Amino acid sequence: MTDLNQLIQWRREFHRFPETGWSEFWTTSRIADYLEEMGAELLFGKQIINSEFVRGRNQKVVDKGIQNALAYGAKQKWLDKMDGYTGCVAIFDSGKAGKTVALRFDIDCVNVGETKAENHIPNQLGFASINDGFMHACGHDGHITIGLGTALWLSQNKDKYTGKVKIVFQPAEEGVRGAAAIAASGVIDDADYFASSHISFCAFSGTVIPDLKNFLSTTKIDIRYRGKPAHAGAAPHLGRNALLAAAHAVTQLHGIARHGSGMTRINVGVLNAGEGRNVVPSKAEIQLEVRGENKEINQYMVDQVMQIARGAAISFDVAYETEIMGEAVDMSNDKALVELVSEIALQQPQVNEIVDYAFNASEDATILGRRVQEQGGKAIYFILGADRTAGHHEAEFDFDERQLETGVNVYTALVGRLLGD
Amino acid sequence: MTDLNQLIQWRREFHRFPETGWSEFWTTSRIADYLEEMGAELLFGKQIINSEFVRGRNQKVVDKGIQNALAYGAKQKWLDKMDGYTGCVAIFDSGKAGKTVALRFDIDCVNVGETKAENHIPNQLGFASINDGFMHACGHDGHITIGLGTALWLSQNKDKYTGKVKIVFQPAEEGVRGAAAIAASGVIDDADYFASSHISFCAFSGTVIPDLKNFLSTTKIDIRYRGKPAHAGAAPHLGRNALLAAAHAVTQLHGIARHGSGMTRINVGVLNAGEGRNVVPSKAEIQLEVRGENKEINQYMVDQVMQIARGAAISFDVAYETEIMGEAVDMSNDKALVELVSEIALQQPQVNEIVDYAFNASEDATILGRRVQEQGGKAIYFILGADRTAGHHEAEFDFDERQLETGVNVYTALVGRLLGD
Amino acid sequence: MTDLNQLIQWRREFHRFPETGWSEFWTTSRIADYLEEMGAELLFGKQIINSEFVRGRNQKVVDKGIQNALAYGAKQKWLDKMDGYTGCVAIFDSGKAGKTVALRFDIDCVNVGETKAENHIPNQLGFASINDGFMHACGHDGHITIGLGTALWLSQNKDKYTGKVKIVFQPAEEGVRGAAAIAASGVIDDADYFASSHISFCAFSGTVIPDLKNFLSTTKIDIRYRGKPAHAGAAPHLGRNALLAAAHAVTQLHGIARHGSGMTRINVGVLNAGEGRNVVPSKAEIQLEVRGENKEINQYMVDQVMQIARGAAISFDVAYETEIMGEAVDMSNDKALVELVSEIALQQPQVNEIVDYAFNASEDATILGRRVQEQGGKAIYFILGADRTAGHHEAEFDFDERQLETGVNVYTALVGRLLGD
Amino acid sequence: MTDLNQLIQWRREFHRFPETGWSEFWTTSRIADYLEEMGAELLFGKQIINSEFVRGRNQKVVDKGIQNALAYGAKQKWLDKMDGYTGCVAIFDSGKAGKTVALRFDIDCVNVGETKAENHIPNQLGFASINDGFMHACGHDGHITIGLGTALWLSQNKDKYTGKVKIVFQPAEEGVRGAAAIAASGVIDDADYFASSHISFCAFSGTVIPDLKNFLSTTKIDIRYRGKPAHAGAAPHLGRNALLAAAHAVTQLHGIARHGSGMTRINVGVLNAGEGRNVVPSKAEIQLEVRGENKEINQYMVDQVMQIARGAAISFDVAYETEIMGEAVDMSNDKALVELVSEIALQQPQVNEIVDYAFNASEDATILGRRVQEQGGKAIYFILGADRTAGHHEAEFDFDERQLETGVNVYTALVGRLLGD
Repeated sequence: MTDLNQLIQWRREFHRFPETGWSEFWTTSRIADYLEEMGAELLFGKQIINSEFVRGRNQKVVDKGIQNALAYGAKQKWLDKMDGYTGCVAIFDSGKAGKTVALRFDIDCVNVGETKAENHIPNQLGFASINDGFMHACGHDGHITIGLGTALWLSQNKDKYTGKVKIVFQPAEEGVRGAAAIAASGVIDDADYFASSHISFCAFSGTVIPDLKNFLSTTKIDIRYRGKPAHAGAAPHLGRNALLAAAHAVTQLHGIARHGSGMTRINVGVLNAGEGRNVVPSKAEIQLEVRGENKEINQYMVDQVMQIARGAAISFDVAYETEIMGEAVDMSNDKALVELVSEIALQQPQVNEIVDYAFNASEDATILGRRVQEQGGKAIYFILGADRTAGHHEAEFDFDERQLETGVNVYTALVGRLLGD
Repeated sequence: MTDLNQLIQWRREFHRFPETGWSEFWTTSRIADYLEEMGAELLFGKQIINSEFVRGRNQKVVDKGIQNALAYGAKQKWLDKMDGYTGCVAIFDSGKAGKTVALRFDIDCVNVGETKAENHIPNQLGFASINDGFMHACGHDGHITIGLGTALWLSQNKDKYTGKVKIVFQPAEEGVRGAAAIAASGVIDDADYFASSHISFCAFSGTVIPDLKNFLSTTKIDIRYRGKPAHAGAAPHLGRNALLAAAHAVTQLHGIARHGSGMTRINVGVLNAGEGRNVVPSKAEIQLEVRGENKEINQYMVDQVMQIARGAAISFDVAYETEIMGEAVDMSNDKALVELVSEIALQQPQVNEIVDYAFNASEDATILGRRVQEQGGKAIYFILGADRTAGHHEAEFDFDERQLETGVNVYTALVGRLLGD
Repeated sequence: MTDLNQLIQWRREFHRFPETGWSEFWTTSRIADYLEEMGAELLFGKQIINSEFVRGRNQKVVDKGIQNALAYGAKQKWLDKMDGYTGCVAIFDSGKAGKTVALRFDIDCVNVGETKAENHIPNQLGFASINDGFMHACGHDGHITIGLGTALWLSQNKDKYTGKVKIVFQPAEEGVRGAAAIAASGVIDDADYFASSHISFCAFSGTVIPDLKNFLSTTKIDIRYRGKPAHAGAAPHLGRNALLAAAHAVTQLHGIARHGSGMTRINVGVLNAGEGRNVVPSKAEIQLEVRGENKEINQYMVDQVMQIARGAAISFDVAYETEIMGEAVDMSNDKALVELVSEIALQQPQVNEIVDYAFNASEDATILGRRVQEQGGKAIYFILGADRTAGHHEAEFDFDERQLETGVNVYTALVGRLLGD
Repeated sequence: MTDLNQLIQWRREFHRFPETGWSEFWTTSRIADYLEEMGAELLFGKQIINSEFVRGRNQKVVDKGIQNALAYGAKQKWLDKMDGYTGCVAIFDSGKAGKTVALRFDIDCVNVGETKAENHIPNQLGFASINDGFMHACGHDGHITIGLGTALWLSQNKDKYTGKVKIVFQPAEEGVRGAAAIAASGVIDDADYFASSHISFCAFSGTVIPDLKNFLSTTKIDIRYRGKPAHAGAAPHLGRNALLAAAHAVTQLHGIARHGSGMTRINVGVLNAGEGRNVVPSKAEIQLEVRGENKEINQYMVDQVMQIARGAAISFDVAYETEIMGEAVDMSNDKALVELVSEIALQQPQVNEIVDYAFNASEDATILGRRVQEQGGKAIYFILGADRTAGHHEAEFDFDERQLETGVNVYTALVGRLLGD
């Protein structure tokens, strides 16, 4: 049986040192320590990351992350294997022929400073973040923990399953940045089943949402224009105005035609441009996101954005680049898995209710799930209810740690049902 | 000596049948009749027109012009030589070695219906326009007449000059459309001197402006976008929105950066787009003009316009075309010619004053004048004063016909001074 | 029983002289002739039209319509009562206490020239449009006919119903322009039931769509800017640029934020602006439409349009006006009426199938239907299947005239069921 | 006679502690110390500043300035008089009836960190800036010094002049922010003459530019939009998009029509907007400047900017504010003063050449100069040549200190000529 004390101890250890997306070097190293101890086969770096599909990875954040991780005790041997890319995949092979299950747990934190409030349990019990400005305020410390708990069971119960289980510890879920690179590496292309979940969210302790619906496809894009500065009084014609290109791009982007077949969204959330009042601006950066009711509609939006980014560059004779900073797709859970998770959930003593919910938001586990579905496999993403003290991404966030046990139990039972004889 | 009665008769004949730019088939035919009689060598069509540089020529206008011209008595033999392109060049060769003088007279009318007012002299004397909606309201009927008067003198006074004189009867001056094609044909590339003029304008009878200053360079451009219609309710994403491309182009065009070295102008004067309220618009047309203090600054504006036309097309994935509909350049009169014309003018009994003036507008004779200057020759454009009854391009316009004689006298004296022994 | 021959005769008479929205003077006059004969009480002009809510009515079209109507035999006595506003309401009062049923038939044609094809039945039988450029190509001639057929039955069968029936012959349905003014007059505010329908559309002879779904709310708006002309070269700063205001308005309009609660649409379908290439444009006109999944979402779009129209006017210091040119709302048919019409339809020998359909378009009968619903009544809009030879609004359109009888039978049966003892 | 050693000592003292515009508390305090010693009448705060016309004054900069000034030894008694507004005016009254001369010296530094290069004289001699990130890199330390030198002469030579002299030590010239408030206070409204100057600029040691020409009128404006954030996926319609308002404003601003009567400029130099990629942006800030060939044309540009700022706010239903951050006007030097300064300059042993120059830039001393001219007085702004080691505003800037003496000699001779018997 799962040991709740062990789970809580893990969760609190990871809670103390939160790392933002693509900088989870200490986190990955520590996860690897535990998995190595359990005898897992471990994959890192280019084995699990296709660097062409890495989204929103900032080299400065990476460099500082490595430095901090080393200072906090990350092992050089794991860093060497990571080769600059965080996250790892653990394989538990039963040694028997059989199917393959892939499970995915995300490991990054959010850029929020943890509350100093005295009644905040991490403060009372001394496990609050020591990494200023960063906090596990979305519960991914819990996800890591459930992953480790499941791994421990897999290492101890090889007689209870056939085939193998691959546990993906995914970096950079915030901003939906990490999944695309893992999917594109092919590391779970042999999976027959895929499962992932989020703790808490809109569900209380004692409930499970086995069939989360209405995932939105989304793509996060940056557009950068580079022009040429010039004195705005003396020689405006010698400038190449990056700010003006960006402003026109924005007005065009918001005018992308609605789609007749379903919902779309566009938001230019941030625009920064220019160097000084009397200089023709030579630099501009746009941060935007698009969404679509499904992958195709979202892709329509992306295509329009790319056209407009280019068109505005040509109009103003400036250089430009676009970068996909994150992405997620829509996904429909497979009915067989929904029924199985529902059944398993209701068998847990802590769970007393199955709930229905339309997500209307985005999660990049969908990229992994659809990858498996496209290869003929089945996928599910569910919500594991847990009481919380504040909204996700808020400084006061904390969750009911007892549900870590529920989580491990659901995953291990699921593996038992899918891979058991 | 010039016979004023003959000049008036010519002027009234041409006034009766005005033809708009590129449709002056009857006008050209009639001019050719007279020039043939005078024994001039005549050039037409591709001999004097480089069709690549023809601006703002509408095939429907051409076709209707030919039809009308035939109905009004144009000769087929001249039409055959014209080959669809109006205007002609008459060469008077003295038979003696010497220099070459090129003179230019424009022959098109404006799209204005002539007044029906009883006190309008063309109505009183029965020579008002019979071509509905068209009128010689800019005095080009006078220009043709001065050209013919000068031709007559040249045909009768070959002993008074050496070398040769080329008289250009230019089509389509309105909208500055005709000169570029004649210049590019090379027909006046051998000219050592170039002279042209406008009657009336801002100058009264008895005055001449020998040194018109501040010609603005200008280019008239049409931009046409072609997209794809779609039902605006059911499938807006299937459309390619030409109207939206055009609207964005307009907002970008007006934002072309000012030039540090001199005056610029941009005006989108007309925009027509769209087919119906509930259809994604598939067609849009922009009519614009740019100006610059000189040819280089004007070219800067043209370059920006072309970039923007393309950029907006790319942003909205629509096809586009640009067409140069007219053009003129800046020109500085050569001092030697200014002095000569001043001297000649003051010798005319009807002229009592030399006036100075800054034009601040555009005339495509400048393209011919600068072509001659670029080959090492000298050029002048002057104003021949004449009282008028209304502003140019107004339905009530008429001018003091006695100045036709002054015009012929100035041109013939100029030829005498430039090519005389 | 309904006499199909009579119906066909009526339909062909009205087909011969189609009149566009707000110009149906002859049509109304002829309808009134027949209704007077049947003994109906008749209402016209301000009795049935609230002129504040008249949409898209062009005075020139009205004036020409009156002239044509008189020439074609419209009676002056009816024109006097109409007072410039077409359409009429006929009241058939049973003389017994009871409920009120309102029926609505639209009477305008479309701006399409009828085909000259020999195989087109109106050409073969000599009842094609004699009003050049106009045609009953949407089947409203059939609607008028069904209305008259129903009226005839009502006049002859007062013993078969209690209460009263109001038959609305509505002008200007094309462009959804006429219903708002009738609704706002209050003329059907006492109705307990409302029914209307369209012939053919997507349904074949032998079918009825009793519960047409997904009506879109829509508003058609014109925006007109008036600036000040100025010479674009000499004094651009003295102009007030209406074209530029319009172009910026367009770019803003297409950027109206999507609505989180449902589908929206925006289309600027037509933009015409400017007087000449070298004049700062002083006039601009925008024709647009917005749509929304429901009335509230549509109103959100209208509000944004009005804001933007004003904002752009202020930015460019130009005068502006907006005019609502048409409007329709969403409507849900009342279940009781849907069941009743289904039952009645299936009792007709010519009808063999009930069909389901999502309209995803707009119809201004919904304004009348919802007016009745808002007063506590019930409403329905259904499709009466009829084979057709071409799409609606096409020059070759014709429909299966036998379904006129089906139409009358459905309406009379409906009145019988709703108002019968 | 002026003591160069004293001047150099002063210059180096002020060089050590540069203060940015509106934070010159220590500088003002130290100037006041010296002037008090010389027996000047001193005016501060509201006596010399009309706070309505204060431009580009940031309260945080002010607060930090006061704190730093106190730490560096500013006297509380002067700070009390300043009442938050830096700068002072010294009056030297001869006690005899006569005219009034106003001289103006600017006292602020620029936001540039001084070079650490060893060959930089302030480093060699130990008087480099100790205020990190700030530097007297425009020579205003020299201006202060010339002002003090002139003051010292005035205090010691009251017998050599009649009337009185007002010396304005003006804050915040950088960004042309300080002069408007001083002009509007009326403190120099009684002046018959006004003189001001810049050291070095484009002129070498040994030269003076007595008649600087082509001052451009300019206004620096910030526009700030405040909207309402909303989740860009779930409820975009609930947001009020400040970024979009700003982007549209930018596209409109750059399209302000050129002015027919003279040169204009517009530059949106900086645009920062938005809070996060998936949030409808609620904040946007635009920093722009306009210029005009003269005050009226510049005002035309300002008027258009204000209209557009408002129009865009209305289009997007966001709140906005505009703030004038700086301003300068054009000015023509009075011929009499130009001749006098030329004559005086050539009498200086260090000066050997008078130079002509078109500035084509902006200086806010023009606001003070024109204020005096508008009251019937005469004004001059000249350049006092001085070799320099690098361009103005560069970290390596230093100038030939010997010209401080030239400066004092020119000013004192000018006073002598204007106010001497």
